[in-house]
Amino acid sequence: MTSFPPLPWLRPPERSPVPPDPRDVRIADLLQTDPAGAHVAVIGIPFDTAVIGRRGAREAPAAIRRALYRMAAFDLESGVDLAEGLRLVDLGDVAVVHTDIHETHRRVTAVLREVTRQGLRSLVLGGDHSLSYAILRGVIEGLGKPLGVIQFDAHHDLREPLEGEITSGTPFRRLLEEGLIEGRHLVQIGLLGGRNSRAYYEVARWHGIRMIPATHVHREDPEVLTAQVLKVVTAGTLGFFISFDMDVFEAACAPGVSAPSPGGLLPASALALVRRLAAHPACWGMDLMETAPPLDPDGRTVALAAAVAWAFLIGRGMVGMK
Amino acid sequence: MTSFPPLPWLRPPERSPVPPDPRDVRIADLLQTDPAGAHVAVIGIPFDTAVIGRRGAREAPAAIRRALYRMAAFDLESGVDLAEGLRLVDLGDVAVVHTDIHETHRRVTAVLREVTRQGLRSLVLGGDHSLSYAILRGVIEGLGKPLGVIQFDAHHDLREPLEGEITSGTPFRRLLEEGLIEGRHLVQIGLLGGRNSRAYYEVARWHGIRMIPATHVHREDPEVLTAQVLKVVTAGTLGFFISFDMDVFEAACAPGVSAPSPGGLLPASALALVRRLAAHPACWGMDLMETAPPLDPDGRTVALAAAVAWAFLIGRGMVGMK
Amino acid sequence: MTSFPPLPWLRPPERSPVPPDPRDVRIADLLQTDPAGAHVAVIGIPFDTAVIGRRGAREAPAAIRRALYRMAAFDLESGVDLAEGLRLVDLGDVAVVHTDIHETHRRVTAVLREVTRQGLRSLVLGGDHSLSYAILRGVIEGLGKPLGVIQFDAHHDLREPLEGEITSGTPFRRLLEEGLIEGRHLVQIGLLGGRNSRAYYEVARWHGIRMIPATHVHREDPEVLTAQVLKVVTAGTLGFFISFDMDVFEAACAPGVSAPSPGGLLPASALALVRRLAAHPACWGMDLMETAPPLDPDGRTVALAAAVAWAFLIGRGMVGMK
Amino acid sequence: MTSFPPLPWLRPPERSPVPPDPRDVRIADLLQTDPAGAHVAVIGIPFDTAVIGRRGAREAPAAIRRALYRMAAFDLESGVDLAEGLRLVDLGDVAVVHTDIHETHRRVTAVLREVTRQGLRSLVLGGDHSLSYAILRGVIEGLGKPLGVIQFDAHHDLREPLEGEITSGTPFRRLLEEGLIEGRHLVQIGLLGGRNSRAYYEVARWHGIRMIPATHVHREDPEVLTAQVLKVVTAGTLGFFISFDMDVFEAACAPGVSAPSPGGLLPASALALVRRLAAHPACWGMDLMETAPPLDPDGRTVALAAAVAWAFLIGRGMVGMK
Amino acid sequence: MTSFPPLPWLRPPERSPVPPDPRDVRIADLLQTDPAGAHVAVIGIPFDTAVIGRRGAREAPAAIRRALYRMAAFDLESGVDLAEGLRLVDLGDVAVVHTDIHETHRRVTAVLREVTRQGLRSLVLGGDHSLSYAILRGVIEGLGKPLGVIQFDAHHDLREPLEGEITSGTPFRRLLEEGLIEGRHLVQIGLLGGRNSRAYYEVARWHGIRMIPATHVHREDPEVLTAQVLKVVTAGTLGFFISFDMDVFEAACAPGVSAPSPGGLLPASALALVRRLAAHPACWGMDLMETAPPLDPDGRTVALAAAVAWAFLIGRGMVGMK
Amino acid sequence: MTSFPPLPWLRPPERSPVPPDPRDVRIADLLQTDPAGAHVAVIGIPFDTAVIGRRGAREAPAAIRRALYRMAAFDLESGVDLAEGLRLVDLGDVAVVHTDIHETHRRVTAVLREVTRQGLRSLVLGGDHSLSYAILRGVIEGLGKPLGVIQFDAHHDLREPLEGEITSGTPFRRLLEEGLIEGRHLVQIGLLGGRNSRAYYEVARWHGIRMIPATHVHREDPEVLTAQVLKVVTAGTLGFFISFDMDVFEAACAPGVSAPSPGGLLPASALALVRRLAAHPACWGMDLMETAPPLDPDGRTVALAAAVAWAFLIGRGMVGMK
Ligand SMILES: [Ca+2]
Ligand SMILES: [Ca+2]
Ligand SMILES: [Ca+2]
Ligand SMILES: [Ca+2]
Ligand SMILES: [Ca+2]
Ligand SMILES: [Ca+2]
Ligand SMILES: [Ca+2]
Ligand SMILES: [Ca+2]
Ligand SMILES: [Ca+2]
Ligand SMILES: [Ca+2]
Ligand SMILES: [Ca+2]
Ligand SMILES: [Ca+2]
Repeated sequence: MTSFPPLPWLRPPERSPVPPDPRDVRIADLLQTDPAGAHVAVIGIPFDTAVIGRRGAREAPAAIRRALYRMAAFDLESGVDLAEGLRLVDLGDVAVVHTDIHETHRRVTAVLREVTRQGLRSLVLGGDHSLSYAILRGVIEGLGKPLGVIQFDAHHDLREPLEGEITSGTPFRRLLEEGLIEGRHLVQIGLLGGRNSRAYYEVARWHGIRMIPATHVHREDPEVLTAQVLKVVTAGTLGFFISFDMDVFEAACAPGVSAPSPGGLLPASALALVRRLAAHPACWGMDLMETAPPLDPDGRTVALAAAVAWAFLIGRGMVGMK
Repeated sequence: MTSFPPLPWLRPPERSPVPPDPRDVRIADLLQTDPAGAHVAVIGIPFDTAVIGRRGAREAPAAIRRALYRMAAFDLESGVDLAEGLRLVDLGDVAVVHTDIHETHRRVTAVLREVTRQGLRSLVLGGDHSLSYAILRGVIEGLGKPLGVIQFDAHHDLREPLEGEITSGTPFRRLLEEGLIEGRHLVQIGLLGGRNSRAYYEVARWHGIRMIPATHVHREDPEVLTAQVLKVVTAGTLGFFISFDMDVFEAACAPGVSAPSPGGLLPASALALVRRLAAHPACWGMDLMETAPPLDPDGRTVALAAAVAWAFLIGRGMVGMK
Repeated sequence: MTSFPPLPWLRPPERSPVPPDPRDVRIADLLQTDPAGAHVAVIGIPFDTAVIGRRGAREAPAAIRRALYRMAAFDLESGVDLAEGLRLVDLGDVAVVHTDIHETHRRVTAVLREVTRQGLRSLVLGGDHSLSYAILRGVIEGLGKPLGVIQFDAHHDLREPLEGEITSGTPFRRLLEEGLIEGRHLVQIGLLGGRNSRAYYEVARWHGIRMIPATHVHREDPEVLTAQVLKVVTAGTLGFFISFDMDVFEAACAPGVSAPSPGGLLPASALALVRRLAAHPACWGMDLMETAPPLDPDGRTVALAAAVAWAFLIGRGMVGMK
Repeated sequence: MTSFPPLPWLRPPERSPVPPDPRDVRIADLLQTDPAGAHVAVIGIPFDTAVIGRRGAREAPAAIRRALYRMAAFDLESGVDLAEGLRLVDLGDVAVVHTDIHETHRRVTAVLREVTRQGLRSLVLGGDHSLSYAILRGVIEGLGKPLGVIQFDAHHDLREPLEGEITSGTPFRRLLEEGLIEGRHLVQIGLLGGRNSRAYYEVARWHGIRMIPATHVHREDPEVLTAQVLKVVTAGTLGFFISFDMDVFEAACAPGVSAPSPGGLLPASALALVRRLAAHPACWGMDLMETAPPLDPDGRTVALAAAVAWAFLIGRGMVGMK
Repeated sequence: MTSFPPLPWLRPPERSPVPPDPRDVRIADLLQTDPAGAHVAVIGIPFDTAVIGRRGAREAPAAIRRALYRMAAFDLESGVDLAEGLRLVDLGDVAVVHTDIHETHRRVTAVLREVTRQGLRSLVLGGDHSLSYAILRGVIEGLGKPLGVIQFDAHHDLREPLEGEITSGTPFRRLLEEGLIEGRHLVQIGLLGGRNSRAYYEVARWHGIRMIPATHVHREDPEVLTAQVLKVVTAGTLGFFISFDMDVFEAACAPGVSAPSPGGLLPASALALVRRLAAHPACWGMDLMETAPPLDPDGRTVALAAAVAWAFLIGRGMVGMK
Repeated sequence: MTSFPPLPWLRPPERSPVPPDPRDVRIADLLQTDPAGAHVAVIGIPFDTAVIGRRGAREAPAAIRRALYRMAAFDLESGVDLAEGLRLVDLGDVAVVHTDIHETHRRVTAVLREVTRQGLRSLVLGGDHSLSYAILRGVIEGLGKPLGVIQFDAHHDLREPLEGEITSGTPFRRLLEEGLIEGRHLVQIGLLGGRNSRAYYEVARWHGIRMIPATHVHREDPEVLTAQVLKVVTAGTLGFFISFDMDVFEAACAPGVSAPSPGGLLPASALALVRRLAAHPACWGMDLMETAPPLDPDGRTVALAAAVAWAFLIGRGMVGMK
């Protein structure tokens, strides 16, 4: 059997069930292999060792990529067509050490520092929220400070490590205490009553953090809100970064997180905010944390996380591709 | 054993667990057996062969009927009591051929043409969205043209058949290209960014379709929106039809569809729009497509589809029973 | 619009998705409307007020009927074709009073007494297991005593009412203490260690009940087991009745019960036993209790309950139609 | 082995996975053991015999307690810190009789009467909505009348007992007909069209009940709405009580109820209303009914119920601790 | 930014969460790109248009590949190490036309004919069971006849097309009536009573098909059973093919099929049979049909299907690599 | 309000829905507070940092305790009544450090060493399987060696740490390489083909581990199997320990584990083995690992794990309470 004859009617496996439509330009089609000249770098961090409650976020980077790369590169509302200029590169996943938070954090910081130094904006797919300490540290080491931070979260994440354990509840406390960021450059959006202790609220107040409860987002005009937030994070800073904890959403819309939150943000509202904020020239990236696919049997939370990532990319497209 | 004695304490099987309350007038109680003189005809199309993704919509007509017929015939908000005059007939299901889309479409068109010719308004329970091509063609053959169309959908559905395959993504393209409808009489409500390619957006623009993204519905006053939509579909038309794709809803509220959409419409908002639109005298019916019971383990999507159908009937009641 | 023209291509609603095959003879086709001359009477009892734990069994009669009536009337293994002679009647549901166990039990007893007096064998679809007190009492009042009883159950159900509350854990204690049945005519099959207190085991021993743990069924030859069971329930009795609690099954196979039981019987094994036992001429019927559809999202337990009911009917067919 | 040596590294079982943070003050920390001097008494009623449809509410008190007691005692939006003064006592569960609605109601009434007489405000965790008859009767017997009532519900619950069966659809009819409350002091919020018969709407109108459909809540300013509601229930009354049926929520947010309601209230909106209403000095308590944990596999509905209870407590904190 | 510096700590995306272990040889590692010289060809058919009930099998080829290729290439029980000689090629998916069963069948037949002509054994991942008509036709056209067939199935699949519709219930009837196979060379294993009409049982008997009910598999020694089956399918044939319908499994073990079957085969038992049968030199391949990932939320059925495919490969390994 | 009057009809919260039956003796009733004189010590390890795949096992100790303590103290099959003599103490949970595997392992070893030294047999509720390294090390430090080990597992768990990461796949490799146990004293029961690489099979062979594939358990007589296993682990040892990985069960019966295994052991069979093995005087305890409650929505796996723990206790009861 030296030469095998051609076989009819076969296609590569795992294609979509209908023949792909050449007119569909998807996010996957924007990916270039060389980071040089790219505008935005996608970076995965499959790590969730620091989650206090139910874990699973280490499976998120793969899951969000699958959903995101299938989405269209076009936003019919704003008219932004990313195919007209957004250069996207996927740098892969950080090589984490599941049993060593400090080493993992060091690696994450090294990656973000280099990426930022090269002028790329980052779209980081986590991973647990403890990683935002390392992510923001890397951005600051690459860009300089002060850096503004917009944190979408039902929680302050201003806990102190207890008995030596860094958790997903501690990243912003560490950043503040180590002087990497200042409270007056930090906005926390989507905070929920009953989910945060007074002690940490007082920490936030003491540091001068701008707090915007979920209830304010529900009733506030999004343009006004955007302006308020941008003012805080751009005043006197070299740029800002968005840190997005998926538990900021209403529990029914994002059940696949460690601690779902009744009363959280509705998808349409948060998606619009992210797009507007990412459209600011000073936005240096976003991390998208705490999506837990094993806790998300029907894929709803992953699809929503992909939509948040997509809104970030559209925002970057609006700003004129950096 | 020639005569069997009467047995005590027995009721017909499958009744509700408590004795039925004679004061509950339900949609089922409006059903008359003779189509003559009816205002609205219910027609099922248990067919989903053309769905691109996850199927199941062929089980929807039976499931939606069960949920709809149990609902009250009264709307406490508007005060409309359908028992005071809406004459409803259930014509049953179209005899589909699961393995022959064209033949199925021919039969669907024949049914809608006759029903429309007899002056009945249609409430069509699909079935996949490819069927709306056949449904609208039938309405047009029965009523004449131009016909206005209000499409609730996260997607344009303006694809071309690829490799000869008609899909649930193609119905409105075919209607436009065959000259059955005109773009300027078509409104698409609930479109989502990231779910539609630029190529089809350009097709929509070229045809002059009025596009209303989901984000507009979220912030627009429903009365203003209703007026805008009605103006498009009634200007110079003989009437209009509503084509409702259940994936227009926020994914958390309608998980049982082929492709759930984070950021879609909220139930209360879409229900109010349907009621208002159906209340216009020129409304010739609605199709309700893409509910997939096998993908809806807790029945949430079916219950919501039934509420959409109910809102249509209340609208018809508001207009003075035709 | 005096006469309505015929409409093409329509069928009655809610038919199966493909045209029904006239060669399929189903259990539904055996149903006759007149109880006179019937061999087996189906009786539903949509009542679960006495369940101690998670409820839902009152929805079982409707659900089991739907699944059972769709099954084929033929058993390819034994060659029994019920269409050749089993006359089946569905007497409907007992008119229960959800808030009055005693009145409900009275009605159930009255129904079973009359049905048994007329010579019909009963297939009772419960309902909670407390009802077996009333069912067996009715059979005894209709047939006389002693009556043998085969109880499939992970539990003894020999509790005493506490603080005056009859529960699903009490039926066989009440039957024994009121002298309606005798322990030596009762077999309990499928009992599980760890799910029954010693106190009730001692009650069972004191009454001389024949106990067959689930582990014995797992390793015993089914023919030997059948012979052992039949010997107990036919020795000196006027007949026997099967009381089947669905929690006797391995939890993975019957999750939709009040208290699923790891280590319980496998479906194939229990189905074979029921068929063999029901094939005995002295079998006066079976009750099928504790299926809870709201706790059974994928319908697995309902399908299994229907298979148990079907095995009973095949058994009746084997005995020569009574 | 007379003396056992100390063992290292062990903690009491069932603690949280990370060492508890002493800075977290939770609702559990407010609980005092002595009812004397308490402001609010928590009372559970694990009873659901009167539910018409799917049951499970009798498991709610235990489940809601677990979720509520873990919530923070602080509301970052209002700045209310319950640790500064709300004295809370948990009186345990009423000793219900599952098979005797009337006896259970008598006991519930006795408990509420005494608790109210002692000046405590009640937070009642049901249980089915039939119990609100007994709860409100007890409050009235303890406080006197007239009493205002704010009912959050998708339904009127103005049915008459049929064939002698009290159900969860009857409580407010009985209260009105027995003269315990007057229609003009009753507000029903969240009513849905299609879920209520005209007959009961007419009963509501005849009694002068103030009806606020869900659609009004969706578009109304919450402050205006609060003022309107408070005016009705405080005009000429000795105080008012909130009766909260969890099926008032949008189905996606509260799937674990007997009959989920598409189009119902969104969590953020209802939580804000409850907090505002409970903050009125004349508010004598709230019952929280119809949460069914067995129908709530991911705990979403229980978490939302706990958030409603928490909003009530925060409201009580706002009023200056009674 | 002409040259981009190397980035530290990054890996390709979507790798497994721990660093891959070089000592793990997986099925994926056996795949060669050139079909020439391969022993077994994997072929996907993502098509389910002919399913009568709940669909979803067209998503199975991709899902089963993912699970299968991750499995180890070694069987510790038999000691077979596929890495020592099984040459595997994945030919991809047949280019199906979802809306044209006949054209799809033609393509499938063409693929199987060529693959068989080249001497490769096939592992076909369906797809609905109607395709087995086309698969077996292709094998026969490639190999010649008579061909033996071993059908694992709860059903006969001997229906006639009704109203011209080919369904997943018809493949073996068509093969018999067109003279492609003979009944005396066909074995049906796993048939269930109550799931098959007498009419089709009589067809099976008339054709001389060897029928082995599920109950026989439960109690028969697997070696004896294997010998009996092999005798039928090898006596006077040129070889045999296995057609495996996943609904042959006990419902609890394979819920993700169109019609789950209580009482079906247990995994361990069927896996052992497949391995033994595939180990016969005359086995020309297996199709693995009716797995429906959308109906399999926890992936249990897909994992079991992959185990069946794996058992087939091990069997091939046992036979000395063809 | 100086003295609060007694309140009627109240019970402590969170009791069972019916009044507790004083005749039910449950495992909880065996618990004594003082470890001195106890026979068996329950120890929880809420830690799952080393799991390679889906995590969740750190929630298992609390969940298994809840289910186990509710089970009856009596086994009707063997007649063993634990209330007649088994003295049980719950030592609580080991104070783990989620972010430090080595420190956690040190603490676990310290606990097990002391408990074993005091002569108590251990029932350890994990936790991930990496912990068995620490557990067995502790037992050996307390008891001396050689120690026999019976490992129920679908996998060898003989991996080497890669890139320095200890995982749940490594415990028995480390024990062997550090000379803590010898291969000839280790039995692995329930191994599955396709789930284990040849490389590790060869390691097992090289060490002389006795391997019993799942298929052998399916067909072997349990008494014979028990004898074979006991012979290996008692020959020349000071005692033996059972290490039970819940993924040894058939996937349908134990879906809530990191990697469910089609073809695994059936519950009845494994429960019988555990009871027999634990009944040997030389059995020094059992660990019960890898149950993941967040992956077990209906509690099936937790209930099965509790049944395994219960079987161990019954076994201990059979041996005459040590
Ligand atoms: Ca966070
Ligand atoms: Ca958070
Ligand atoms: Ca759509
Ligand atoms: Ca559409
Ligand atoms: Ca039972
Ligand atoms: Ca029972
Ligand atoms: Ca209510
Ligand atoms: Ca209600
Ligand atoms: Ca088949
Ligand atoms: Ca089949
Ligand atoms: Ca293991
Ligand atoms: Ca394992």
